[in-house]
Amino acid sequence: MLSEFDLIKQFFQRPRAGRAALGIGDDCALLAPSPGMQMAISSDMLVEDRHFFAGADPRMLGHKCLAVNLSDLAAMGAKPVAFTLALALPAAEPAWLGEFAAGLFALADLHGCELIGGDTTKGPLNICITIFGELAPGQALRRDAAVPGDDLWISGTLGDARLALAGYRREVALDEIALRAAGARMHMPTPRVDLGLALSSARLARAAIDISDGLAGDLGHILAASHVGATVDVDALPAGPVLAAQPQALRRRFCAAGGDDYELCFTAAAGQREAILAAGAASGSAVTRVGRIDAAPGLRLVDAHGQPLALQLAGFDHFASP
Amino acid sequence: MLSEFDLIKQFFQRPRAGRAALGIGDDCALLAPSPGMQMAISSDMLVEDRHFFAGADPRMLGHKCLAVNLSDLAAMGAKPVAFTLALALPAAEPAWLGEFAAGLFALADLHGCELIGGDTTKGPLNICITIFGELAPGQALRRDAAVPGDDLWISGTLGDARLALAGYRREVALDEIALRAAGARMHMPTPRVDLGLALSSARLARAAIDISDGLAGDLGHILAASHVGATVDVDALPAGPVLAAQPQALRRRFCAAGGDDYELCFTAAAGQREAILAAGAASGSAVTRVGRIDAAPGLRLVDAHGQPLALQLAGFDHFASP
Repeated sequence: MLSEFDLIKQFFQRPRAGRAALGIGDDCALLAPSPGMQMAISSDMLVEDRHFFAGADPRMLGHKCLAVNLSDLAAMGAKPVAFTLALALPAAEPAWLGEFAAGLFALADLHGCELIGGDTTKGPLNICITIFGELAPGQALRRDAAVPGDDLWISGTLGDARLALAGYRREVALDEIALRAAGARMHMPTPRVDLGLALSSARLARAAIDISDGLAGDLGHILAASHVGATVDVDALPAGPVLAAQPQALRRRFCAAGGDDYELCFTAAAGQREAILAAGAASGSAVTRVGRIDAAPGLRLVDAHGQPLALQLAGFDHFASP
Repeated sequence: MLSEFDLIKQFFQRPRAGRAALGIGDDCALLAPSPGMQMAISSDMLVEDRHFFAGADPRMLGHKCLAVNLSDLAAMGAKPVAFTLALALPAAEPAWLGEFAAGLFALADLHGCELIGGDTTKGPLNICITIFGELAPGQALRRDAAVPGDDLWISGTLGDARLALAGYRREVALDEIALRAAGARMHMPTPRVDLGLALSSARLARAAIDISDGLAGDLGHILAASHVGATVDVDALPAGPVLAAQPQALRRRFCAAGGDDYELCFTAAAGQREAILAAGAASGSAVTRVGRIDAAPGLRLVDAHGQPLALQLAGFDHFASP
């Protein structure tokens, strides 16, 4: 039987090469931001049957639970530094743990993000990561910084993760190839870390958020915090390649209020358009202008002709009735 | 029905008065240690039926889940600064949340430790706190710093929390008053934050750990990390007031390998004895000298006459067979 300490040693303790002054193995890790920098800190907890299916592929799960945290750093424009991992497991299964760690560390290494500590315990499967990035004071892309007249931008594409969920639930008929392609967006999201960093370090964007609960809901947090409104051209929203082949009504709905997209939604002055397109190209993330910030409160969804659209939308709320 | 966002606003978002540059409500919190200081970071995950009983008093639970994290800072000698809270709840019950938050914030305010972010989701009850303290480089009480010849010290008293567990399980007969007194040690542990800080800031102690899984097991981590051994006078171990009235065999066993004590076990040069007693008195935590660090590896338990004791001891391992 694998003990708690063997488990950590075998799967999660690696030769030290990171930034932390002290990593796994003491009561605390020791970490300092670079001189003059702030730490950006975020926690996400992923629960079986809520954020992922029971029996989910452990390698993809290892990727996803770090990806959603990296996405929070991206939305702030922070550079990833380190993370802690707290893990409740029904049992210590070496095969599962090996795959989980492989998926986790592949993404961590891609972003130079070091595992510095955490906790393991027996219990219903639950994965809680707290992530640490760094940025200069004043560099953060805050939710309260949008200004009327700002352009509204989206990275990458939207809706394929939500389409995959509909496919798994058999609410939408998808062939196997389509389901697999859309499912990859759900299980292996790409955090837009380089884009976020480019937007913040060159002060290209004002406000930003990552889209985890659907664009309408998450954009709503920017609007509320900034005391502004927005007009979004729903037909300009960049649908994922699988969703793009679906009927217009579904495309509009899953783009405007999907979920699990982990793309960035950000605002920027009109004078930054060229620079933002260049930053998108340089960071390997498409960026699309989809609307504008208004002084009048509220979110207005319009079609390609500027006509108001009445869509039934709801952001995801973990405690809402099903 | 209470939404996820209302829940955070109603129970966890408070008027800002803390150190963080940005607290709850954005993709990340922003925090920097004081100039020249490091951050000490620790995560603990508490699971229902594992770390606390189903139906546990929510106010005491709010206290305990922060206390065990503060205890990790104390063991490092770090000053508490802030924490994140990730919470999986079967349902959003206002009465439960109100009590939980009251217990949590009472202890947080006592130590000037600010809640700066986190996550809430539906799921089997799980509480994951990541805590942030600060200390000067070189100030940390690390596990690998014990030296042969060091005294071995314990703060407070041991074994009452383990005795309460035995009482609840009816392995030991305790009257109601005794069970309540011992139970208070289990449900409302006192993190030795001020003592830890005094030991590290005046460089009184060398190595330290907090005793969560039983003295023998946790001291074993210091011995392994420092490549040393130790001799412990089991009869010198300070038994809790309820355990003190129990037979010697039980007293020895629950002092040497109880669990849930959240006292500090630390080593120090013999020349520091007076200063350590003074630091204990000043910080309101009794300190007791219970043994010494040896060059020879292994943990030797002896009685008051220095004779070897053969106790059946096992530290707590979350993945060991029951």
